[in-house]
Amino acid sequence: MIIDCHGHYTTAPGQLQRYRDAQIAHFKDPSSPAPSLASVSDDEIRESIENNQLKALRERGADMTIFSPKASAMAHHIGDEAVSKTWTRINNDLIHRVTGLFPETFIGVCQLPQSVGVPISHSVDELERCVTELGFVGCNLNPDPSGGHWSGPPLTDRAWYPFYEKMIELDVPAMIHVSGSCNSNFHTTGAHYLNADTSAFMQFLEGDLFKDFPELRLIIPHGGGAVPYHWGRYRGLADMLNRPPLSEHIMRNVYFDTCVYHQPGINLLFEVIDVDNILFASEMFGAVKGVDPETGHNFDDTKRYVDSLPLSDADRHKVFEGNVRKVYPRVDSLLAARGL
Amino acid sequence: MIIDCHGHYTTAPGQLQRYRDAQIAHFKDPSSPAPSLASVSDDEIRESIENNQLKALRERGADMTIFSPKASAMAHHIGDEAVSKTWTRINNDLIHRVTGLFPETFIGVCQLPQSVGVPISHSVDELERCVTELGFVGCNLNPDPSGGHWSGPPLTDRAWYPFYEKMIELDVPAMIHVSGSCNSNFHTTGAHYLNADTSAFMQFLEGDLFKDFPELRLIIPHGGGAVPYHWGRYRGLADMLNRPPLSEHIMRNVYFDTCVYHQPGINLLFEVIDVDNILFASEMFGAVKGVDPETGHNFDDTKRYVDSLPLSDADRHKVFEGNVRKVYPRVDSLLAARGL
Repeated sequence: MIIDCHGHYTTAPGQLQRYRDAQIAHFKDPSSPAPSLASVSDDEIRESIENNQLKALRERGADMTIFSPKASAMAHHIGDEAVSKTWTRINNDLIHRVTGLFPETFIGVCQLPQSVGVPISHSVDELERCVTELGFVGCNLNPDPSGGHWSGPPLTDRAWYPFYEKMIELDVPAMIHVSGSCNSNFHTTGAHYLNADTSAFMQFLEGDLFKDFPELRLIIPHGGGAVPYHWGRYRGLADMLNRPPLSEHIMRNVYFDTCVYHQPGINLLFEVIDVDNILFASEMFGAVKGVDPETGHNFDDTKRYVDSLPLSDADRHKVFEGNVRKVYPRVDSLLAARGL
Repeated sequence: MIIDCHGHYTTAPGQLQRYRDAQIAHFKDPSSPAPSLASVSDDEIRESIENNQLKALRERGADMTIFSPKASAMAHHIGDEAVSKTWTRINNDLIHRVTGLFPETFIGVCQLPQSVGVPISHSVDELERCVTELGFVGCNLNPDPSGGHWSGPPLTDRAWYPFYEKMIELDVPAMIHVSGSCNSNFHTTGAHYLNADTSAFMQFLEGDLFKDFPELRLIIPHGGGAVPYHWGRYRGLADMLNRPPLSEHIMRNVYFDTCVYHQPGINLLFEVIDVDNILFASEMFGAVKGVDPETGHNFDDTKRYVDSLPLSDADRHKVFEGNVRKVYPRVDSLLAARGL
């Protein structure tokens, strides 16, 4: 079985964005009418999935996707806590409908109602709702709700701890995933995403988070940002800062996905990172939607790159399925209940 | 000849840091005495270089270093414009003394008196002084004088243009190099440096800077941040954003150095980036000072990694010397005047 651990609902019916536009307008001008999401039919959802993610999944030869709301649209920097809560709930409920319509293919991961300056403990209820009521298996945790201003504390700060405690209680991992950038220095998918990945890793290196939470499991997407390419720098920094080796200090708790959109990058990832820490993912359809003229295939068809690696059957199984079932125990339970 | 294009004076005599501490104290409390730099003897400078950079340079088999003030200590976010001007001048003058004492080995590159919210045109005079009076061959341009808050405009904004015009007039390149981070989300050398490299590249991708300045030459250090590892993402983003291919849009003007501290990273760099765009560099002694237990050699002994590549003699010459002479015409002139 081949499980893609990183997909977003970037193809949702237009009612969703129209609601969002109206929600923002209402926040800016509360005298304008309070919006509600226009009805979205099951057929509309089916169509938005069948012609896009499901089609590509089948063409590319994968079986399942761990699916969450569009990351760049979480936009925790827009509006206030109430805006974020409503927007988050609508998005998560829509993911739940997708998983209900395609239970064999899509498993839900939730967005959180983070908001600038609001304690992360306020996101605990929505995580619990999504996991216990909607059957979701994890969440996307935004390390920078300010959208590129990085005004909050690092992920190792105790301010985040109440959320980690709930994650462990529910036995779900988080993907560390920023949203859209409102800082003109950072293009969302070309800079902000990768910078966040890199920064999160270095925060873990500086801190002692996994000493406090040995059971915490975090996925750094986009192949770990700059980290594998600079693995020597990080090994050296751990040494200089008197931290334990990365294998003990970080890599018992942190996983990288395979959202690296060319063969040389995937080769490097597998050369320097232990195969136990790599989860297959494509983030389709996300940052890069086109076809690579050098290969004739989609940039984000990462399965081709992984298929090209000289992995043993056991290692290939880890990357495509085993590691996901380990990191997301609720995926494992779901599959086991289906006899898989 | 082997030229290291990226070295900082991280081993300056203690008087320099004592001055800085006093300068900051005086800025915070102007009633305290205004400091001046205590006398630094030629012997002290010789010792600080001979026992450190020069020793390592010889041991590692390189010939010259393009040398600039300690990057993390530029700290353009500290104090105000006057503080930055004085601090910058002192640092550049010290680099000039190093190049005067070791003219065959060190060539100067200057720090700039950038300061938060101050127009970059105010840095033109110091660039001109360093190039025309001190014989420097380039500068380090900080894309984020705020030290990790990224409060200014991207490098493609017209606000930066007066400086680029002066660079072209003087025929000098700039290395895009941030300084210390005062944002707890970003470790200086483990996150902020690499994020800045990545962000600068993406700014160039989004913008049209090199259409306006076809002669501008910029070096992105630390192996280009996350860029080569994600080269497929950038090729795909250029396509999605309707930009020309990277080879035309960016890589006629932008160069990456080899400050990548392990063999797999260097291998990737040379696999995806044209050899004409790669400059040898180590940034010793900078981010990572230790010995890699996996190799028994210093992490930042990047010459070993480059030596291990199966390069032709012509390509090796480009990386170690030819490209530097092309990107820094004033280095070429200096060497030519010496019959080299």
